[in-house]
Order: sequence, then structure tokens, then C-alpha cells
Amino acid sequence: MTRVLSRQDVDFLLYDWLGVDRLAEREHYAEHDRETFDATLDLAEKIAEDVFAPINQVLDAQEPRMGSDGKVEQPEELAKALRVYADSGLTASSFSHDHGGAQLPYVVRAAASTFLGAGSVGAYAYPALSLGNASLLVAHGTTEQVAKYAVPQIESRWFGTMCLSEPDAGSSLGDLTTTAVPQDDGTYRLTGSKMWISGGDHELTDNIVHLVLARTPGAPAGVKGISLFVVPKFLVGDDGSLGERNDVALVGLNHKMGYRGTTNTLLSFGSGAHEPGGRPGAVGELVGELGRGLTVMFHMMNEARIGVGAGAVALGYNGYLRALDYARTRTQGRPLAQRDPATAPVPIIDHPDVRRMLLTQKAYVEGGLALILYCARLVDEAATGDTAEARGTASGLLDLLTPVAKSWPSQWCLKANDLAIQVHGGYGYTRDFTVEQLYRDNRLNPIHEGTHGIQALDLLGRKVPQREGADLGELAARIGDTVARGKALGGATAEHSTALAATLDQLLETTQGLLLGGDVEAALANASYYLEAFGHLVVAWLWVEQEIAAHGREGSFFEGKRGAAHYFLTYELPLVESWLGILRTGDRTTVDLDPTAL
Amino acid sequence: MTRVLSRQDVDFLLYDWLGVDRLAEREHYAEHDRETFDATLDLAEKIAEDVFAPINQVLDAQEPRMGSDGKVEQPEELAKALRVYADSGLTASSFSHDHGGAQLPYVVRAAASTFLGAGSVGAYAYPALSLGNASLLVAHGTTEQVAKYAVPQIESRWFGTMCLSEPDAGSSLGDLTTTAVPQDDGTYRLTGSKMWISGGDHELTDNIVHLVLARTPGAPAGVKGISLFVVPKFLVGDDGSLGERNDVALVGLNHKMGYRGTTNTLLSFGSGAHEPGGRPGAVGELVGELGRGLTVMFHMMNEARIGVGAGAVALGYNGYLRALDYARTRTQGRPLAQRDPATAPVPIIDHPDVRRMLLTQKAYVEGGLALILYCARLVDEAATGDTAEARGTASGLLDLLTPVAKSWPSQWCLKANDLAIQVHGGYGYTRDFTVEQLYRDNRLNPIHEGTHGIQALDLLGRKVPQREGADLGELAARIGDTVARGKALGGATAEHSTALAATLDQLLETTQGLLLGGDVEAALANASYYLEAFGHLVVAWLWVEQEIAAHGREGSFFEGKRGAAHYFLTYELPLVESWLGILRTGDRTTVDLDPTAL
Repeated sequence: MTRVLSRQDVDFLLYDWLGVDRLAEREHYAEHDRETFDATLDLAEKIAEDVFAPINQVLDAQEPRMGSDGKVEQPEELAKALRVYADSGLTASSFSHDHGGAQLPYVVRAAASTFLGAGSVGAYAYPALSLGNASLLVAHGTTEQVAKYAVPQIESRWFGTMCLSEPDAGSSLGDLTTTAVPQDDGTYRLTGSKMWISGGDHELTDNIVHLVLARTPGAPAGVKGISLFVVPKFLVGDDGSLGERNDVALVGLNHKMGYRGTTNTLLSFGSGAHEPGGRPGAVGELVGELGRGLTVMFHMMNEARIGVGAGAVALGYNGYLRALDYARTRTQGRPLAQRDPATAPVPIIDHPDVRRMLLTQKAYVEGGLALILYCARLVDEAATGDTAEARGTASGLLDLLTPVAKSWPSQWCLKANDLAIQVHGGYGYTRDFTVEQLYRDNRLNPIHEGTHGIQALDLLGRKVPQREGADLGELAARIGDTVARGKALGGATAEHSTALAATLDQLLETTQGLLLGGDVEAALANASYYLEAFGHLVVAWLWVEQEIAAHGREGSFFEGKRGAAHYFLTYELPLVESWLGILRTGDRTTVDLDPTAL
Repeated sequence: MTRVLSRQDVDFLLYDWLGVDRLAEREHYAEHDRETFDATLDLAEKIAEDVFAPINQVLDAQEPRMGSDGKVEQPEELAKALRVYADSGLTASSFSHDHGGAQLPYVVRAAASTFLGAGSVGAYAYPALSLGNASLLVAHGTTEQVAKYAVPQIESRWFGTMCLSEPDAGSSLGDLTTTAVPQDDGTYRLTGSKMWISGGDHELTDNIVHLVLARTPGAPAGVKGISLFVVPKFLVGDDGSLGERNDVALVGLNHKMGYRGTTNTLLSFGSGAHEPGGRPGAVGELVGELGRGLTVMFHMMNEARIGVGAGAVALGYNGYLRALDYARTRTQGRPLAQRDPATAPVPIIDHPDVRRMLLTQKAYVEGGLALILYCARLVDEAATGDTAEARGTASGLLDLLTPVAKSWPSQWCLKANDLAIQVHGGYGYTRDFTVEQLYRDNRLNPIHEGTHGIQALDLLGRKVPQREGADLGELAARIGDTVARGKALGGATAEHSTALAATLDQLLETTQGLLLGGDVEAALANASYYLEAFGHLVVAWLWVEQEIAAHGREGSFFEGKRGAAHYFLTYELPLVESWLGILRTGDRTTVDLDPTAL
């Protein structure tokens, strides 16, 4: 059996570092204890390794096809695996008791999700999307909508989607043109095209619940004219029974480089392919208030973006473990000191450059996992913190860190996948090994749920200055606290803490310069470098945190933590200085260069 | 018609910068002038764009399969395209008059090759490999071997391969086990398995000429026991007629992430699948001296490695031009200063972050092309320079730069492909656009012909210290000369030159520390960072060179050169300092870390 993620690492981060077991002391989680957390992780780990991982390559090799009947064809292994998942009750576990759930802390669920994504990101996307869909309905839908559309998803009987993008409106949602016209019975009829809809059609469940952004007649231009609608594939009776086919049609499947287990679709709403109630138009119900569609949708955005980051970590981690196994068993060449060709070749892990590639992967994927779980812990704190102040602080810090949680793993855990291929040499370039698939799968993550460039603008243009910099101040205070604790420990940890503190000071100084310097246009044009610098600093901080949590503990696991922390602080942190240096130049090349010169 | 490479850029680099037209003044190239060079480039450009590019996606979608008869099946478009190529005489043009060639300068041929690789790297690999194969035979084979095995390749009637790797010996060729047993008639019989053989089998030509490394009975262990053999798929009579099928069998096709136009094979020599002369054993002829196989094979290695770099540039360049076209036509969103949703969306090239991604690609791919053509020009200088000293100097500098020419484009033009996908957003992740294929194709380049790690060891462990550092001294002198010329021009060029000079000093100082510091093990363990730093410095130098060549010239092409030079010197060069800083720490983590801690 292949490990897809290190349980020891997950346990270390959840319990030794984040003290997640103490969440059970809170009233909201009173039915839980470490045992129930562990049982959830055990279940997720088992499904990831025994059910999802074995079909992962099949899902890639047999990408979804549209049959002659217009239905999606996928390997039958997928439906079977997802039934095992559905029976596990894992989706429900995150929801409140009121909705049939186990009220599990978000951070435990996030760890479980990372396992499941590491097993097969393509298979897990269906329930993951449905979890987000149902959570949104629970937060913003009416009681009837929750019963009709959320509960079947909570029970994993149906899957759901998020329909935001259109062929000409992806990053700029304000330009979407799908319309929703109110009907006498209080419903709406939707017409328009939606692009990039993951899980947009399939035969895996009896129904599909689409959450669709659309514009009502006379609504203002831009984002303020957008509302949210729930549009099922099959209409649903008040008793939950399935009725007529709604006017939602599969126009085409996107043929992707990776992530092929998940159908990705162009959907047509209201094209007349079906005629519910005897006439064209996709029947939908308004969710929340008119004109608040994007706000409602973005209410879930922090969690959705952490979810993307978690998926990127999962893929990177899986690749790292495979590269590690390969490097331990594959023999080739000899160390410098032993060049005699008569001696036996050594496992390639004995070559320092291979060890460098493994250590780099380790630093990226374990750093990425720490980032995801830290942010997930903030989600719980924002929801159940002891005081309003604690909840507000956590919420603000989560806002600030979300673009990092989305983009840093999408960039650096993809880089880890790149290195996993490299460790495998020519074999890594073939489909006989999984690492090339992981690399292709992970390439999606810097694109969806807000591209890298969008995250950079979000961080520098919105999150850093928001609340007069209070969230950045909170982050700086927490890093400062870590630095103080790290320095007190002496040795390498103190040295790493000193380097971290110096880089933090540089970042804060550069940030001041950017925000107060007056040339907002140039600052934002270079926002991607800010995101790089900020992300690496945050992960460096979390590596010092891990080093502190590992302090004084013996054994190879903890030696590994110290080694990776040392690597990150020594080899990676200095890059921050380069990126900040670029920002300090205030260079306007990318603003001023005439596009015809490109 | 899609441009796959910029002819204007090629002309600028060849003529305005490198003064390649002046090569025609040399006796060896006396039959040439700019007109014949241009005619070659015209031909290559036309085949790349009209013949190779249109089939490139087909070759990817229909990867080679082994039919029930054991023969390779590929799209018929490939054979047709390669016949057009064969008829062009382009392969022959590089060879000397004695061998039916046009005695074209290598640098012109390299530019033509980059065009062809940009058209379809998978299609062009067959003649490119054959060119290398025939060149080796011309340099080291007997007159009979040249006539029998090289000439048909020079005429593009047959294709050839290089059979080095085995399933358990890729990077460590000294461990290869294929044996060659001498026969009474002067031939050898070979037995063994060869892995990763590109073009190892196909039905594209009547015969395939394998150059095979093998060990003779009683030969010493390691690289000194390796000899080189020419082993045809079909035996060849003295009159050039095809005879019996040789005992070379296709065991399997490797299923690759990309580069699928080129078959990549596991071949079995001497398995008894065929019985030439009535008995098993692949019939081969010794090329060059016994025990000198690796030396002979590596004689072509500089050119082979420049060829890999050229292929990486070609893929990156093609992607850049596609991203540029897309960014100019795709509309979405609005600039900062124009957020009114009632206004029309703008072409995405108007967004600074998109322009940043394009400018980065431009700096990488045009920088990479400059690097390849500079090295190719050194090949000509080493062969036809006016004095022995000039030839020796060029040869030494070429040796030094070869690991950079191989690895820098393999890394950074792959990064350019990554950015080309990102510019396309979700569309870039689908197979409807070519950029995802280019990214998959290019991922091979850091692996084959010596991995990135091997190039790093070659650079720091061998090339830099060789000839007591004379080649590095020559490089430093040339950079110094550029700096002096750049400073004299004033303005931005002077500033860039100053930054370049400062970074060169740092590199030289760090190099001294590494080579004289005593801890060779730690230095070599971190050799990859040295390769990063060295490569970026070299390309920064070539950007200042281009800026100087563009000095005083007006128009968007030259503005673009200045913009990309400014970008590279401002945004990329500072990374060198980070990498050198890592090297100066002399950190031993990757040497000392216990593998069990990973």
C-alpha cells in the first residue's frame, strides 16, 4: 500500500503543534475528543489509500467522454469509489447536529480532506465541491432550500457545483451575462452559458445541484447586479422526489492536461434542450438577497481557496513520498568518495543532489501542510473562539492569509511535483509512474478559484491595507512571538528566528513603502513579487514554529523536521530579500512598456 | 499561419549581434554569403510553420503504439512531413562538401534547428538525432562506415539513434552491461538491453542506424571498458543494399508525458528475435578504438547538449508567441483607472500582471536563444577560427558554457511555458490550445542528455576548474569587455552593466571560495545552486550584449529588446545574489542529513 500523506506529520501538526485536541473543550465540539478526531482521520486515510489511490491512474487514462446519448461516460471504478466515500459519512461529519452532522472542527476536516485529495484529487473533487455547495446553502438558503438541496449533498446522495465563470468572464465576474427572469410562482428562469464547471455533469449521482451566478432584468452593471440561484439538474418536489429534467444541458467536456477524474464542462442554461413545465428556461430559486450573489458566493471563498491549497499540498505530498520511496530503492552511481566501478551502485538517496531535491520537496509539502492546517485552525477560531475579539482577530488573519494559502502551495507544491519527476529521472517522465500525473494535476491549481495574479492583487491591494493594516499587524505580532520563543531555545532555532525577524522587518518596511509611496499602479503591477515574498516569509515562520514544536524530541521524524526547517530558513528565505529588492525599486516596466514592444 | 519563432529576432541575433555574415569571409565557408544563410533559414522556417507545426498536436494526441505485428504505428502525417523535410536537404547542408554537404556554419544550422524544433519537437527529433549520429560517424568512422551508415542519414533516407542508457544505467554509464563479442569476420555480436532510445524503432525509414555503447569481454570495469558500435536495424551490403534483419528487437514503447511524436523505446540486442547469419546476436561494427566508446560518444556531447537547449528554447519561444497572440486578442476586465463596468473589457495584454508574464517569457526565450546561438557561434569558431589560439579559446569557452546551454533553457524556457499557460487561464489548461503540450514536451529537457544535477556537477566539478580556470577567466574577460562597452553608452545600459559587473565579481569570489575552501563535498552538494547562479549571470550578460546591439535603434522591436534587458537585469539578476549567498554559507545539510530523516 502506498502512503499518500504522512499520518505522523498530520498528527504532529494537529496535536503537538496546533493543540487541536483542546478544541474539544469548547462547547460547540463537546461531543468530540481526540479519539473521534482520530477516527475521522483513520477513515479518510483508509479511503484515500485503499479506495481512491488505486483508481487514480485509471481516471487519468480514461478521461470523461460524452456518449452518443449526450451522457458522460467515466470508468465504473469512479462511481464505485464514490459510493464507498458516500457510505463513510465523511461529508456529513463537518455539518452541525441540526443538519445531521457531527459538528467536527474544520481543521480536522481539512486534514481529512488533504488525505482524500492525496488519494485522488480527481475523485475527491465531487464531494469536496458538494461540501462547499451545501455549506453555502446552509449559511444562506431558506429552510426549504436546505432540506431540498443541501441535505442530499450532506448525505452524499447528490453532488453539487459552483457555476461562476462564463466563456468570456472568468477572472472578471462582473461581466457575466447569464440572466435570471422572475416568474409568477416565485422561481426564476435562467438563460446563459457557464464555462469551467467542475462536476457540471456526470452519471455519478441521481441529481446535481448547481449554484449559479446570474443577472436579473434591470440589475445594475458589474458585480452589484449579480444574484445567486440554485438550479438542480432535475427539479425537486417538496418531498424531495425527483421531477422533470431541468433545462440545463451539457454542451461540451473540456479536455484537460490533468485532473481528469473530475468532469469539467461547458453548460448551457435555458437553451431549450429540455422544457420543464413545457417551456425552455432553467428553473432556479434565488439564494439570499437579490444583487448579493457575489457576496454570498465569496462568503465561502476563504474555505474554497484553502481547499485549493490543500489539494495542491496533497498532490505535492503524494509525489514527495513516491520520490522518497523511489530514491531509497533505486540504485545508481556511487558517492564522490567511492568512485571504484567495481563496488556496487548505491541507492540514489545517497547522492547529495538527490537528497537536496527530496529535502526541498519535504520543506515545500510539509510547509504547505502546516500553512493549510494553520489557516483551517483559524476558521475554527473565527467560528468558535472564546471571545468576540478572538473571533475577529482570527477572522482578520484568515482573510490576510487566504491568498497565501491558495497560491503558495499551488506554486511550490507544484515545484515539488517537478522535483519528484526529476528524482525519478527518465522513468518519472513516463506514465508508468504516478509523479507525472501529479504534476499535470497540480498545474490546475494556480489557475482556478482566482489565478495567481488575482491572489497577488487581493493580498497587496485589499488584504494587507484592510482594517488599517491591523491584520498584518497581528501576523507580525505572531511572528514576533515565535521569534522570541525561538531565540530563547538557542542553537539553530535561535539563528533561524533571527533570520526570520530580519526578513519580517524588511517585509514590513517594504510594505510601508509600497502602500504609502504613492505609485499604487506600479506597486500593484508588481504585486506577484509581493505575494512571493509574503508567502515565503509566512512559510518560513511556520517552519520555525514546527522546529520549536519539535524541540528536544528525538528520532528521525524530528531530525527531519529540524533538517527541513534549516533548509527552508537557509536556502529559501534569502529569496525573499531578492523579491523585496525588486519591489523597492518601484520599477514601472510592466506598466509602461508599450504592448507592441512585446 | 502561426509564427513559431521570431525571424526578426533570429536575424537580429545572427547578423546585428553575432556578425555571422562575416563567417562567409572564411575559406571554409567561402561558397556562402548572407543570401545562402537566409535561404537556409527561409527553408527551415517554412517547413517549421507549414509542415511541422500543423501536425504537432496530432502527434501528441496519437502517441506511437505497437501493432499486433510488433511494428510501431504512428499517424501517417508524420511520415509525410518527414519526407518533405528529407527532400529539403537541410540535414546535408551542415556536412562538408566531401560528404555531399553544403558546409554551412554550425550557427546557421542551429538557428534553422531551433525553427524546426519550434514547429514540432517530436517530428524534428528524428532528423536531429540522425544528424548527430552521422556527424559522429564522419568524425570517427572508417571510410566504409561513413559510406554505409552516415551518407544515408546525411541524405535523410535513414534515421539514426544513440543507444547509451540501460534500464539500470542512465546517469551512471560506467555500469552498463551490454556486451559485444568479437567474431572471426571482424564484426561483433551484441547482447543487452537499451532503455530510453529515442527513434529506437519506427517505420519512417527503411533502415535505422544505432550507435551502441557496449562492453567487450575482459574489458575493465567502469567507463574505460566501454566501446562504441554501429548496429543497423537491417544489415547493409557493401553496395549499400539492405540485407537481413539484424537481431535488434523492439521490446516496448515508453508512454511519455510529452514529446510523443518521437518514439522512445526499450530495445533488446541479441535476444534471438531475429537470427542474422542463422544465429542470434546483433551484428555490429566497432567505431573508433576499443575502450574509447564514451570518449567518442562525448565528442559530440557539446553539440548534443546545445541541441537540447535549442529544443527547450524552441518550445518556450513557440509558447511565448502563442501567449502573446492570445493576450492581444482575448478581452477581459479593465485597468485600475477604468473600473466602470459599463465600459468595454480590454485585451488582457493591458493588465500589468499579464504584461509581466509576457515580458518574463520574452526575457527567458530570447535570452535562451541568444545563449544557444552564442554557443553555436563558438562551435564554428572552435572549428574554423583564424588562429590555433582563437580556436582553443573558443573551444574552452564552449566547454564551460555547454552545461549552461543545456540546462538554463531546459529550466527557464519550461518556466516560460508555464507562464504561457497562465496567460491563457483555464483555456491554457485544455488541449484546445497548444501551450499545455509545449509544457509537457519541454519537461523532458531537464532530464535527457544529462540531468540538471549532472550538468551542475559538470560545471562546478569539471568545467570551471579545468585548465586552471582559464575558461572561466575568458568568460570573465568577455563579460568585462561587455561591461566596458555598456558603461560607455550611458543611461540604462550603463546601469545594467554596472549591476552585471558587480554580480560577476560576486560570482568569481564565491567560485574561489568554493574551489579553494577545502570542503569539495559540500561545494558539489550545492552545485545546483551554482548552476542557477552561473546560468542567470551568463544570460544577464547576453541581455546586456543584446541591449548594446540594439543601441540607438528605433522601433518596437528594439524597444522590446531594451524592455526585456531591463527586466532581466532588474528582476532576475538579483536572484544570483541569493544563490551565491547560499553557496557562501558552505551549508552541509544535504550531505549530512540522515536519509532516514527524510
